[in-house]
Amino acid sequence: MYCCFFSEPVSPAFAPTTLKFPKHIHCDVDDKLNKLAEKIFTRSQIGPNHTHNEISAPYEVLQYPIEEEADRSYFEKKYHTQGDNSLKSSIGHIDAAYDSVEDEEAEFLTAFQRIAINGNEISGVPLNDLEEASKSLVKALMIREKYMAVSNQYFPKVTARFLQSLEEKAEFNKVNYIGEKKSILDHPIHAPPTAGDPFNVPLQESVHCSLKMKQGIVYVYKDEENLMENKPIDFPYVDLKSFLADQNLMYAFISDGPLKSFCYRRLSFLSAKFQLHLLLNELKESALQKTVPHRDFYNIRKVDTHVHASSCMNQKHLLRFIKKKMKMEPNVKVCKTKDGKEMTLQEVFQSFNMSTYELSVDVLDVHADRNTFHRFDKFNAKYNPIGESRLREIFIKTDNFIEGRYFAHILKEVMSDLEESKYQNAEYRLSIYGRSRDEWDKLANWAANHKVYSDNVRWLIQIPRLYDVYKSNKLVTCFQDLLENLFLPLFEVTNDPSSHPELHSFLQHISGFDSVDDESKSEHIQFDAASPQPEDWTNDTNPPYTYYLYYMYANITVLNHFRRERGFSTFTLRPHCGEAGNVTHLVAGFMLAESISHGLVLRKVPVLQYLYYLAKVGIAMSPLSNNSLFLNYQRNPLPEYFARGLNVSLSTDDPMQFHFTKEPLMEEYSIAVQVWKFSSCDMCEIAMNSVLQSGFDHAVKQHWLGPNYTKEGVAGNDTTRTNIPDVRAAYRYETLVEELQSICLGAKSFDYEHTKKES
Amino acid sequence: MYCCFFSEPVSPAFAPTTLKFPKHIHCDVDDKLNKLAEKIFTRSQIGPNHTHNEISAPYEVLQYPIEEEADRSYFEKKYHTQGDNSLKSSIGHIDAAYDSVEDEEAEFLTAFQRIAINGNEISGVPLNDLEEASKSLVKALMIREKYMAVSNQYFPKVTARFLQSLEEKAEFNKVNYIGEKKSILDHPIHAPPTAGDPFNVPLQESVHCSLKMKQGIVYVYKDEENLMENKPIDFPYVDLKSFLADQNLMYAFISDGPLKSFCYRRLSFLSAKFQLHLLLNELKESALQKTVPHRDFYNIRKVDTHVHASSCMNQKHLLRFIKKKMKMEPNVKVCKTKDGKEMTLQEVFQSFNMSTYELSVDVLDVHADRNTFHRFDKFNAKYNPIGESRLREIFIKTDNFIEGRYFAHILKEVMSDLEESKYQNAEYRLSIYGRSRDEWDKLANWAANHKVYSDNVRWLIQIPRLYDVYKSNKLVTCFQDLLENLFLPLFEVTNDPSSHPELHSFLQHISGFDSVDDESKSEHIQFDAASPQPEDWTNDTNPPYTYYLYYMYANITVLNHFRRERGFSTFTLRPHCGEAGNVTHLVAGFMLAESISHGLVLRKVPVLQYLYYLAKVGIAMSPLSNNSLFLNYQRNPLPEYFARGLNVSLSTDDPMQFHFTKEPLMEEYSIAVQVWKFSSCDMCEIAMNSVLQSGFDHAVKQHWLGPNYTKEGVAGNDTTRTNIPDVRAAYRYETLVEELQSICLGAKSFDYEHTKKES
Repeated sequence: MYCCFFSEPVSPAFAPTTLKFPKHIHCDVDDKLNKLAEKIFTRSQIGPNHTHNEISAPYEVLQYPIEEEADRSYFEKKYHTQGDNSLKSSIGHIDAAYDSVEDEEAEFLTAFQRIAINGNEISGVPLNDLEEASKSLVKALMIREKYMAVSNQYFPKVTARFLQSLEEKAEFNKVNYIGEKKSILDHPIHAPPTAGDPFNVPLQESVHCSLKMKQGIVYVYKDEENLMENKPIDFPYVDLKSFLADQNLMYAFISDGPLKSFCYRRLSFLSAKFQLHLLLNELKESALQKTVPHRDFYNIRKVDTHVHASSCMNQKHLLRFIKKKMKMEPNVKVCKTKDGKEMTLQEVFQSFNMSTYELSVDVLDVHADRNTFHRFDKFNAKYNPIGESRLREIFIKTDNFIEGRYFAHILKEVMSDLEESKYQNAEYRLSIYGRSRDEWDKLANWAANHKVYSDNVRWLIQIPRLYDVYKSNKLVTCFQDLLENLFLPLFEVTNDPSSHPELHSFLQHISGFDSVDDESKSEHIQFDAASPQPEDWTNDTNPPYTYYLYYMYANITVLNHFRRERGFSTFTLRPHCGEAGNVTHLVAGFMLAESISHGLVLRKVPVLQYLYYLAKVGIAMSPLSNNSLFLNYQRNPLPEYFARGLNVSLSTDDPMQFHFTKEPLMEEYSIAVQVWKFSSCDMCEIAMNSVLQSGFDHAVKQHWLGPNYTKEGVAGNDTTRTNIPDVRAAYRYETLVEELQSICLGAKSFDYEHTKKES
Repeated sequence: MYCCFFSEPVSPAFAPTTLKFPKHIHCDVDDKLNKLAEKIFTRSQIGPNHTHNEISAPYEVLQYPIEEEADRSYFEKKYHTQGDNSLKSSIGHIDAAYDSVEDEEAEFLTAFQRIAINGNEISGVPLNDLEEASKSLVKALMIREKYMAVSNQYFPKVTARFLQSLEEKAEFNKVNYIGEKKSILDHPIHAPPTAGDPFNVPLQESVHCSLKMKQGIVYVYKDEENLMENKPIDFPYVDLKSFLADQNLMYAFISDGPLKSFCYRRLSFLSAKFQLHLLLNELKESALQKTVPHRDFYNIRKVDTHVHASSCMNQKHLLRFIKKKMKMEPNVKVCKTKDGKEMTLQEVFQSFNMSTYELSVDVLDVHADRNTFHRFDKFNAKYNPIGESRLREIFIKTDNFIEGRYFAHILKEVMSDLEESKYQNAEYRLSIYGRSRDEWDKLANWAANHKVYSDNVRWLIQIPRLYDVYKSNKLVTCFQDLLENLFLPLFEVTNDPSSHPELHSFLQHISGFDSVDDESKSEHIQFDAASPQPEDWTNDTNPPYTYYLYYMYANITVLNHFRRERGFSTFTLRPHCGEAGNVTHLVAGFMLAESISHGLVLRKVPVLQYLYYLAKVGIAMSPLSNNSLFLNYQRNPLPEYFARGLNVSLSTDDPMQFHFTKEPLMEEYSIAVQVWKFSSCDMCEIAMNSVLQSGFDHAVKQHWLGPNYTKEGVAGNDTTRTNIPDVRAAYRYETLVEELQSICLGAKSFDYEHTKKES
């Protein structure tokens, strides 16, 4: 802090020679330094011949700042040469590793400043460790590949390709670009709106199968006879024994010291490499984004990948809605008390001693605050407006006295806001509890009656892990009861759509399942071979997280096979996972789930984090939600995950509890951008991840991300829709390929050594 | 991280006795601990007789969490007793220091958990230091009081009262509550909308004074004769000599070691005390807020106290506006090139080789990003859409080829959004440069022609510190030319309103002056007695910050006296100050300005920070702006200032550069709340500060904050409008009173000692 008090007037010209220290011996260097200082100093002075940096004030700028001129000429050049093949001519700059690419692939090679690592040992760990680690990682990836394949869930092509080359002992293709880019003209970014009634779906004939749940899994039999003979149709799934064996292997991997160390190093390397990439290519990425006509962060598609339907409106919206209903329908009966009395909304408020006028956001008290941090119980209570479960019952339930009418209304208001925003989409969670067999029908009837549908919305079904509660309330006798309530209706409707016609049509709009509850509750029981089977799980204790997840996965797997056979849509498993609690949750997520929500605990488990990276497992993160519940905003691992290249998206979780503005998803993005200084390019990448993770149809994604979006790397990146510069797409892709290559090579040499010793 | 792999099945019941360590000798304590553990454990288990904490999942809560029941009963009690005098009965609880309060004051005494400091020496520093420090602080406060009084600017009553008691050697009144609270009924929160044309203001007769600027200050003479005889009207102001003397004194204070240490300790004490207050009273504050009918953070008044008009729209809004104009008026002539050619908007875009479709937010490139950090020059360039000063000229200038028509249009759109929001208001900055004498008339004509007015908006005039630029472009010959261009028109219109009729009416809506430029530019010159007078300041160097501020202050002071004599509105000085650069800026701000914008540098200057606290100097802070330019969000001192009780408000600065959503002020609040975990009560306090700092009329503020808002402490807090619980108001007020009391007592005993020695 320069501060000179009571000084004599300093002469306005800089006079360095008067500032010499005593006994200082003057030398040449001093002169040079003096000259430099004078030069720098005069640069900030104004003179008639000095024009640059002339004005720096937020009201008038006559000149461009230092880099501006360079940027402008670059930008203009880019702008006018867009579309020609100038990029091809710059292949010469590209790292030697890519010299061998074929001509037809050249069009996807992007010129930017690449970081190449040379030398023999490029992993930074002893060769032995590399080999061991690589083998473990490859094995873990193969486990996930198997689980995803059998359940019809997503596994990235590029990782699969490397794993396959390894099994076939073939050469690794470094890059794999095929096909040509289509222009925006042949495939508009707007998918055509759904025509007709989305709930009017043809009811296919029944296939007259028989169904029976045994040991927690539904078996499908061709007919009654096969059922009697116990000859189910052979729909593949991973049986309990294999699962437990694989799980044990995964547990061994994540606690293996050298592997932990290896993965930690690779992750640190990925962070550092990304930072280098930004320092070298940031301006280029930004300039490339400007060359994309029309497209910017506001008009690229983004999906709020994790929102609970019952809290998808913000607090102000809910308040206004309640006030509106009080004004318009004060005398409509809205609920029934336990003693059978029917009450109007006015009577309900009278019972609280409260008028509409008095109602405020403070009284509503649904917003999370300092007191909810690490208090999931308090947080849950926030779901009750004014702390009254009756209001929750009336306004945000699907199955109540008014048959969910108000909830449907407010949902439709939220959805219409989404539609108006055009580019924002959401995946709302609706609950199925598994307490009784008719829950699915009730939910489907609610949706069909109120026509709760929007092209901008897909549904996920969240299943709370509350067996212990139902059991203590004598709603179920064993865990299998719960599983039957959850899954049998889905098999029935798949077998014979006309048995549950509304459910059949509603299932078209449901893309998957979520598993929810407080993960931080301590689990005293481990899921292993000694755990009782679901039909024998009759004690009052809640089964562990993994137990729930395995049985959901197994049933979804069989169901997906059955539905594919019939030509129906299939489902994914996208549970809450790693928000808090034990790391075993994340192991289960890695094995069984297509993507997860939260994943905060990954920051403590380098092996899993690296595996999630290699397998591109989607992670829907909600830093504002975490900030109120489990982890302060500044400590959220999202920016680190993102830098390393994990497949992260931003989601709001509960706008009612966390957000203030009318656009919660934009608020979520805005805060992340401001606090973590994300660039526009970073934001677009996160938005693209959110579309990829979402359960919207392939055809819709083709509109949103481009017809080739499933292709690898730059070939799959349609800048005109994603607004992601090819430089970034190429960096991410090439980095992943290098990581895969490195561990596949490691695993291979291990096999070789191994074979040699044995022979 | 608890993680137990490959374990044998653990029996579901907790069996602590099996977990004994070998060689452990069993004792009584073990039994007790075991019992406790069992108790805690069973609490989280489910049994038919156990109902609490039964479910904790975000979909169904049957019970209330632990504190909820207590809260509810408290809340209900409060709710039903509201308005009665139950508070009076709790006076007994209040700290002994307040025992002496009169009965009529009792109604303002709020019951809450106070923190009392007892003992003889309560300041924590040696008595000598306390005395010295107190004397310096009192002297500094008296300096500010003098400058505020003479220029008709705000100085807090409570601080003035203590200073006066000191001069009169009277007793200090600890609290001072007079008057009664009015209910919301006699004074609605909505001020009546302005009737008629806001630009149709009666033109009073001329008073035929003569005006002349000498040594940088305008003098007013009764007539030409007095002018010839050099007998100006005696409007008081602080002359240069006194100012420099006071400034030297202030410089001595802020660099005085013991005083620095004293202030640092007091500030730390204030932080710690506030944290204690929150821990003790947070729940009470929150419960009290709920008892306020209807009012919540969304419907209390808030003012965006610092926004530049030319960037008050967000980037998306500007983009849409440009596209709209391109579509509606492509063939209207909008600008004139240097060689005299008139161009239409279409031609302008053709000259950029760009169509409307191609335009995106990325191309617009007005948003601050990672590259603007510590680069004010780059940031300034962001004011040029597409990097083209021509677009800035067309769209965000008041004085251009189309006479500022587009800028007026977009401003009116922004203002209409504000009006729709009802409770959001803003103070926009418009520029006067001082390059020529007709700037004021041009600006006023623009405002009057386009009827740029809103009840939700007040204007400030920002004066860039750009003398050096005008000088080098030969627009002025000495600094006094600039001052004359700035101030003479204002004196002329005050003398004779009909000489500038539009300006006369526009001045009704202008509340003050702002001083703007990059504060981080190094200043090589100190403002002292040797500095040339404005008429002699003819060199090319820019005068220092303080020089600008003093001459603005001195002229505003004289002008305010002149205008008060005539019954016209007066002006305040509210400069950018302490965003970066030298601490001398903050000294000038303390002496001359009613409030400042930014004040970041205060974090490094404890003496000034403490003085700003004692004198309640308003600080309009913009953490998002700082985050892009000078200081990372997490390091912003706002939460610290707020905890200590400084008068801080939140403002957006430049929504075009920093914000993403349609509600920039709400976005600013939301991010602050999320990152710093502010409570609803904290937010309401910041919002109230923003109204207090703003330049809206006293009558308007009475509507917004309550008729008694100028009263001290709880008496001035109208909870039904501010939504601030009296507990918080009382805490802030009593804390300030204790600080003032402590330093006044210190200063007094010093006087006493001093007198004794001399006698």
